[in-house]
Amino acid sequence: MALQSRRVSALSREIKLGDRVLLYQDVRRKWIAKVEPGRFHTHRGYFELAELVGREYGGSIRTSMGQNLAVFKPRALDIVESFDRPTQILYPKDIGYALFQLGIGNGDRVLEVGTGSGALTSALARGVAPDGQVFTYEMRPEFLRAARANVDKAGFGPLVTFHNEDPTEGFEEKEADAVVVDLGDPWRMVAAAWRALIGGGLLAGFTPTINQLEKLAVALREGGFMILEAVELLMREFKTEAGKIRPETRMIGHTAYVTIARKLLPASDV
Amino acid sequence: MALQSRRVSALSREIKLGDRVLLYQDVRRKWIAKVEPGRFHTHRGYFELAELVGREYGGSIRTSMGQNLAVFKPRALDIVESFDRPTQILYPKDIGYALFQLGIGNGDRVLEVGTGSGALTSALARGVAPDGQVFTYEMRPEFLRAARANVDKAGFGPLVTFHNEDPTEGFEEKEADAVVVDLGDPWRMVAAAWRALIGGGLLAGFTPTINQLEKLAVALREGGFMILEAVELLMREFKTEAGKIRPETRMIGHTAYVTIARKLLPASDV
Amino acid sequence: MALQSRRVSALSREIKLGDRVLLYQDVRRKWIAKVEPGRFHTHRGYFELAELVGREYGGSIRTSMGQNLAVFKPRALDIVESFDRPTQILYPKDIGYALFQLGIGNGDRVLEVGTGSGALTSALARGVAPDGQVFTYEMRPEFLRAARANVDKAGFGPLVTFHNEDPTEGFEEKEADAVVVDLGDPWRMVAAAWRALIGGGLLAGFTPTINQLEKLAVALREGGFMILEAVELLMREFKTEAGKIRPETRMIGHTAYVTIARKLLPASDV
Amino acid sequence: MALQSRRVSALSREIKLGDRVLLYQDVRRKWIAKVEPGRFHTHRGYFELAELVGREYGGSIRTSMGQNLAVFKPRALDIVESFDRPTQILYPKDIGYALFQLGIGNGDRVLEVGTGSGALTSALARGVAPDGQVFTYEMRPEFLRAARANVDKAGFGPLVTFHNEDPTEGFEEKEADAVVVDLGDPWRMVAAAWRALIGGGLLAGFTPTINQLEKLAVALREGGFMILEAVELLMREFKTEAGKIRPETRMIGHTAYVTIARKLLPASDV
Repeated sequence: MALQSRRVSALSREIKLGDRVLLYQDVRRKWIAKVEPGRFHTHRGYFELAELVGREYGGSIRTSMGQNLAVFKPRALDIVESFDRPTQILYPKDIGYALFQLGIGNGDRVLEVGTGSGALTSALARGVAPDGQVFTYEMRPEFLRAARANVDKAGFGPLVTFHNEDPTEGFEEKEADAVVVDLGDPWRMVAAAWRALIGGGLLAGFTPTINQLEKLAVALREGGFMILEAVELLMREFKTEAGKIRPETRMIGHTAYVTIARKLLPASDV
Repeated sequence: MALQSRRVSALSREIKLGDRVLLYQDVRRKWIAKVEPGRFHTHRGYFELAELVGREYGGSIRTSMGQNLAVFKPRALDIVESFDRPTQILYPKDIGYALFQLGIGNGDRVLEVGTGSGALTSALARGVAPDGQVFTYEMRPEFLRAARANVDKAGFGPLVTFHNEDPTEGFEEKEADAVVVDLGDPWRMVAAAWRALIGGGLLAGFTPTINQLEKLAVALREGGFMILEAVELLMREFKTEAGKIRPETRMIGHTAYVTIARKLLPASDV
Repeated sequence: MALQSRRVSALSREIKLGDRVLLYQDVRRKWIAKVEPGRFHTHRGYFELAELVGREYGGSIRTSMGQNLAVFKPRALDIVESFDRPTQILYPKDIGYALFQLGIGNGDRVLEVGTGSGALTSALARGVAPDGQVFTYEMRPEFLRAARANVDKAGFGPLVTFHNEDPTEGFEEKEADAVVVDLGDPWRMVAAAWRALIGGGLLAGFTPTINQLEKLAVALREGGFMILEAVELLMREFKTEAGKIRPETRMIGHTAYVTIARKLLPASDV
Repeated sequence: MALQSRRVSALSREIKLGDRVLLYQDVRRKWIAKVEPGRFHTHRGYFELAELVGREYGGSIRTSMGQNLAVFKPRALDIVESFDRPTQILYPKDIGYALFQLGIGNGDRVLEVGTGSGALTSALARGVAPDGQVFTYEMRPEFLRAARANVDKAGFGPLVTFHNEDPTEGFEEKEADAVVVDLGDPWRMVAAAWRALIGGGLLAGFTPTINQLEKLAVALREGGFMILEAVELLMREFKTEAGKIRPETRMIGHTAYVTIARKLLPASDV
């Protein structure tokens, strides 16, 4: 079953035929590969993938040109990073923060609008595993197809229900613990999200521009939500060579604003 | 049982006697309260806690002075925020990011050094629920006592094993998926962490100063780890009033650098 | 004369009666004082100001309670920092950047709208000294009065012309090298600024909210300007104790967006 | 004379043969050109430079392929940006801030160590004009040659004295108002800087790594300076298209830490 815990698989720490492995040269050069007959080529030589079978994860392999590659069991996010992502990219800083602030945990029912590449879908699925479920909506069939393949590749297929629908008029599911909106006009989903959530249920919206943030905030307040926070996260990477510690010269300056809100019941309901 | 999923409890959406509720006035004024006989006092009046029984989560209550308070089911992090925290404070931005980058998921075995208030312990426990386990080490008995009470309050007690020990010479557990180090001299734990981790296992270190970051990075490289990244996250909160969108004037300028590394097996082991 | 260069006064490095001195305990406790008969009191004792006469700048004085205070010749900005500032505060990071990007230099004619406390006025005057001139407009007479006193105190009076007028319909001066706008509705000044500037003349606008930035940008493009840049500057202060280097925990998260534009002549004029 | 004020030259607002002009297509495509017989080529066509003669600054010119270029009188910084810069690059955010915090003004005597390309030298010269002087030290003769040509091109030659010397043992000048240090081992210059400065004189150091910042801070404190601040500035550029306001995706994440200190006289001197 795809959803076995990492613990169980760790008990057999050996690489097996059919495993997906993370080959890691450095932060910019890393690849997911499937262990099967054939060669894996890098710009610094190749090796036979089948040579990995029986070795322990965490070791390294040497290519024909003498380049060492570490061989890791991929994290879910390593697989997600290998997705083709035709749409707006959310970064780990944003996803990790939103998951934490939404309080996503085992057993939750989460709705997502804007499946995109399935990257966020996979992160949500991992968060609700093993007993929860993610229901994701994507209007463009070709995106949905690619996302489904990606989510399967990451091993989260059984936790995700895919809808090729526009949920503006209403989600099929009710009693959701959280709704995550990642599309260009998130304000359009506010009414449907409110109806689908439990009282106090959480909503996260990702918006690249300030104008989108503003419109979403207005719609949330008018639509019966309490905004807990609207934030942006800036991440700086550091060079850590001893005696030469410094931030990297270049950084990503902006991805998206993250808004977190909770559904309020009308005063008369109390 | 404390670890039932939020889903299950959501099926009964009513507030019950004995529940812990989040009373929310605004982002700076919010409290966790236990629903039991007695009054809850704010600077804007009081109300009888028992009045909440039978109401639905997500509604609001009015104090004697007419102040509305939203009544939410607390997220784990709301409870964690209510902990007394005598030690260095990690922020959601840091914890959420580290959890995501460690790939913490259901079933993982995670070691923690520096239990502190139990805030990070709780977040880790939530991440490995329901089948994993967190083993946490704290040398100061009074901290450990408080942390245990906090973790119990947050409902994660069954997932956590507490050790009043210094693991420098070795953790009691082996085959760990991840080790999290949050103390002033994290480099001291590198050798023991390496021995306790599975091949490719992950380590996260939190260090407030650059000098600590540098020492940790040196120790990790010399100690058989590959550093995946060393980052800092800056979070800006926004005012979202329509027509007056702007970042808050004041912000937290620094908490800690987050270092993520993976255990490498020696070349000869491959 | 107030505008003698610092060089000249440095030749007589001694503190004289009537000088304004900067008394500096640390970054948060510093004061401008006039050297005249009488005591200067701090929370750590007092001293007689006249004792400073004849000493050299850069030395220190000991209070009755044994606190050392460094005694510096104030920079213009030290005096400016001592202004009462009832209005929006621009920070050195913003002012220094704008002055540099405007290319303000000796001999320039600069228009300012929104005199406020006179802090930016003083910085501009310093920039155009000794041969330039600043013309500043402020609609509120009580602000103008205070600003004039401040600018005089900083020694820049002879370089500044004060107008108690609203220049929306037109500045009195023409052929300006630069216009600086620091008020809540800067877009209102765009047409007048265009007419007052030389071809290619520069404009700087400071706007705290994103909405103001947007409106200003629209007005500038429609009003015959080319926007060179719209930026925000984040400044982090560092603790520099050896072995404990780290950013300060708290920082100013936002002051204002700075927009720099140049006047374009209509195509038909070329 | 090269140091005439911009004001004077603005009186004749026409472009003349021999002028250096700024040709501006957009923020990434801009060039300094000398108005002389011959064609100026861009990737979008060419035009005859002599056609500019007699036109007014601030207008635009159309190339053979129909591309409009704005024609501006260059700011000093536009010329400086056109320098070949083989060495570490300081950005306007850093230079503007340091000039402002040093209180550099007309008449100051400023020492610089590490002439580099002459970019900072030019900014300092502009700051002390017309009555001050900059004395700059560079150990590598080929850098000094290039810097001198650059400074001349920017029109600041008469304000700058160049030394092809290592001032570690002592600057030739005394009674300096400020010392600016921009080289890899700035701590080496602290003793000489102290001796060359007037009491309370200011020092600015630029250091790319934290380790350099730490060593400089230690040397300054031990060498008789009071550190006023050590900061880093982060600059974010914004897209300002109406309805799509957002920070640019990519930004410069780090340039240098800026340290500002003042010379303290020994207690016995007071």
